Amino acid sequence: MERTLVAATTDHVGQEVSVSGWIDARRDMGKIIFLDVRDRSGILQVVVVPQVVGEQGMAIVKDLRPGFVVQVDGLVKARGEKAVNPKLVTGRIEMEAKAVTVLATAQPLPFDATSDLGLDTYLDHLPYTLRTARARAIFKIQGEIIEAFRAFLRGQGFTEFQAPKIVAGSTEGGANVFTIDYFGKPAFLAQSPQFYKQIMVGVFERVFTVGNVYRAELHATTRHLNEYTSMDLEMGFIRDHQDVMRVENDFLAYLVDHVARTCAAELELLRATLPAVPKDIPAVKLREAQEILGKEFGIACIGEPDLEPEHERKLCEWSAKTHGSDFLFVTHFPTSKRPFYTMPDPADPNFTLGFDLLFRGIEITTGGQRIHDHAMLRNNIAKWGLNPDHFAYYLEAFQYGMPPEGGLAIGLERLTAKFLGIENVKEATLFPRDIARIDERLSVS
Amino acid sequence: MERTLVAATTDHVGQEVSVSGWIDARRDMGKIIFLDVRDRSGILQVVVVPQVVGEQGMAIVKDLRPGFVVQVDGLVKARGEKAVNPKLVTGRIEMEAKAVTVLATAQPLPFDATSDLGLDTYLDHLPYTLRTARARAIFKIQGEIIEAFRAFLRGQGFTEFQAPKIVAGSTEGGANVFTIDYFGKPAFLAQSPQFYKQIMVGVFERVFTVGNVYRAELHATTRHLNEYTSMDLEMGFIRDHQDVMRVENDFLAYLVDHVARTCAAELELLRATLPAVPKDIPAVKLREAQEILGKEFGIACIGEPDLEPEHERKLCEWSAKTHGSDFLFVTHFPTSKRPFYTMPDPADPNFTLGFDLLFRGIEITTGGQRIHDHAMLRNNIAKWGLNPDHFAYYLEAFQYGMPPEGGLAIGLERLTAKFLGIENVKEATLFPRDIARIDERLSVS
Repeated sequence: MERTLVAATTDHVGQEVSVSGWIDARRDMGKIIFLDVRDRSGILQVVVVPQVVGEQGMAIVKDLRPGFVVQVDGLVKARGEKAVNPKLVTGRIEMEAKAVTVLATAQPLPFDATSDLGLDTYLDHLPYTLRTARARAIFKIQGEIIEAFRAFLRGQGFTEFQAPKIVAGSTEGGANVFTIDYFGKPAFLAQSPQFYKQIMVGVFERVFTVGNVYRAELHATTRHLNEYTSMDLEMGFIRDHQDVMRVENDFLAYLVDHVARTCAAELELLRATLPAVPKDIPAVKLREAQEILGKEFGIACIGEPDLEPEHERKLCEWSAKTHGSDFLFVTHFPTSKRPFYTMPDPADPNFTLGFDLLFRGIEITTGGQRIHDHAMLRNNIAKWGLNPDHFAYYLEAFQYGMPPEGGLAIGLERLTAKFLGIENVKEATLFPRDIARIDERLSVS
Repeated sequence: MERTLVAATTDHVGQEVSVSGWIDARRDMGKIIFLDVRDRSGILQVVVVPQVVGEQGMAIVKDLRPGFVVQVDGLVKARGEKAVNPKLVTGRIEMEAKAVTVLATAQPLPFDATSDLGLDTYLDHLPYTLRTARARAIFKIQGEIIEAFRAFLRGQGFTEFQAPKIVAGSTEGGANVFTIDYFGKPAFLAQSPQFYKQIMVGVFERVFTVGNVYRAELHATTRHLNEYTSMDLEMGFIRDHQDVMRVENDFLAYLVDHVARTCAAELELLRATLPAVPKDIPAVKLREAQEILGKEFGIACIGEPDLEPEHERKLCEWSAKTHGSDFLFVTHFPTSKRPFYTMPDPADPNFTLGFDLLFRGIEITTGGQRIHDHAMLRNNIAKWGLNPDHFAYYLEAFQYGMPPEGGLAIGLERLTAKFLGIENVKEATLFPRDIARIDERLSVS
């Protein structure tokens, strides 16, 4: 018999169907045994009665434990009113088993994965702990976040491209890069697709790419990862950084709508509250933000070149209170603190046309207008203490005509975590890498 | 004035609009100057007349060269019947310039990128050479191939996930891995997301991921890359490898339809012929394939454990001639030649339930049913000369219940190349990495 998904059995009351899935629970009620069978669509209650499955069938069912993979052929029946379970998609029906086949056995489960495990135990056993309803909800939603990013941008005339991850130099001349042995020569893991997406503006005007990026940071915090997924876009023919902010604002509205539509059950399970996205997300210059921090929170930081994590949290509090917005753009960071390719503000070249987007207490995006003039860019590379000749390949894109352009990057895992109210970004990362772990814990040497 | 895309100017005959783009060509016809302005949507002919733009305008236009980025405000006019250019989307109209603004200058172009450059020159100057209509067509189509892969699988109940690229061990215990310095410890670049997609079958049943994979192969051929994009899927509750082949067959039909719909102009420009996808792609066992090679082509190879490139070409010739199919599945490779996780054929355990898909002379997919039984998998790891304890994390997925499952991987760049009739896979790779090149050529040490 063809397999029927558990959620589709409700269309087959009075008929025999075949379902396959994992045993989620077995409840022995004397002679009758209840099985909860889970597949990707939901959970189905199966009733096993000796008179129907026979002695051989009962022997199979008695050995079943959570984790076993089974095929159950049986009759779909409506439940009595009292037995209806409104929490299940299949709560108005159940299946009376005719035959049970074991497709795969499972060892006794090491612990209850739905209990409060502690992060290390959770991560030590991801191949098992990712099977919980909670983890499945998180990563289903994460998949939809990426899909929304792509679908929105495709609708706006953006073209997708694949960026290389092995690079010959570090993108921004900085530290924190992982070194690869590339046939006896050193190469590096890309910290971002920055140069490639700028090059691609010369090809397609508007481009995006989603992929892994790497930071060899020695941090062990709730917000850092050594390998994460970056959702990047870059667009030509902009007036200034505000055109890029507009695209992000519209994307976020699209995203919230998309996730609400496609992941209602998962959001409910996680008790996640989707953010309201204002038509115009409030934006303040860094200097204004610092004044707010002083006036509203007594934090003296005027003149500092960047925001501390505590500042980001407080500014988000302020934005929520004052503007009813979970989001806040902060613009005009000092030129000296931004990468060499960031466009200075023509009105005050000590500050850039760059921005961060803060969301529920944390920065999830860095973006801005870039320098598109070849001579200016080349000069800036030298000003930053780097050798322009090492950037010849990248610079070629600007040599042969580059429109005014800008872009941004969104950290997928941070966005997922903040979207869903998850404290530690590692819980919103499928297989997180940090200084102490690549799947298994790294031995201390 | 808001920017109008070049292709949309046809809706504005008799109106003034503003377009922005690159100068593709300038033709001086005495007093009048014609400009071809290109943006992401197409090319527009702009007529510059001294009486309209004035002396200052003419001075700007006289300095324009291909590559310059401009904004042109002007009046859209219908062309006379004789001046219609059916090759252009905008061939029935032209724009009379009122004002021309230079958004960015360009240095004189180093060579005509549309001429026959030779691969090295082409690759040395990708930031410039990717701007040709040919390259744009190739990578627009490549973006649509990925989109089709995702859209088809999402429709089939697959969930997308992000696989890590930094791994603690080499997936298949083999050589050809790149080593990373991971905080003083060795780590590796993943050769495939194999283990992760199998783990994820335990979570979502049906999963897919698209991302970079790495092979530290010293080959310099037209078919090898050291970093490429792998489109991977894995699915549970299969009967055998044929269920996986069915999904690939249906995906290919979907793909051809999708590309035909979304990329008609690009296909025409590349003079590419989309393959016909038979309802059932022919499938032969390796042994049968070897008999065909002997009988039809006089190639004696019966008993060899794998196919040579020449064999793949000949088998595709045979498949096209005999079955009218550009595709051919070859199944049942010897167990000893496949990775430890490949399911042996119960009818003859010396051969596997694995398959390759050949397409126009080359293998573009390897797939098959996997071993899902924990004890059998553990034993096989040892049989392959590896230490099962090093695979503890991966094995945990099988310890706690794994349905019969299988999957496949499609090399995106090879598929793109063969789809479009491109000889060298590097031309179907945006920024190819090989033993001699990471963007710029690596210095010989």
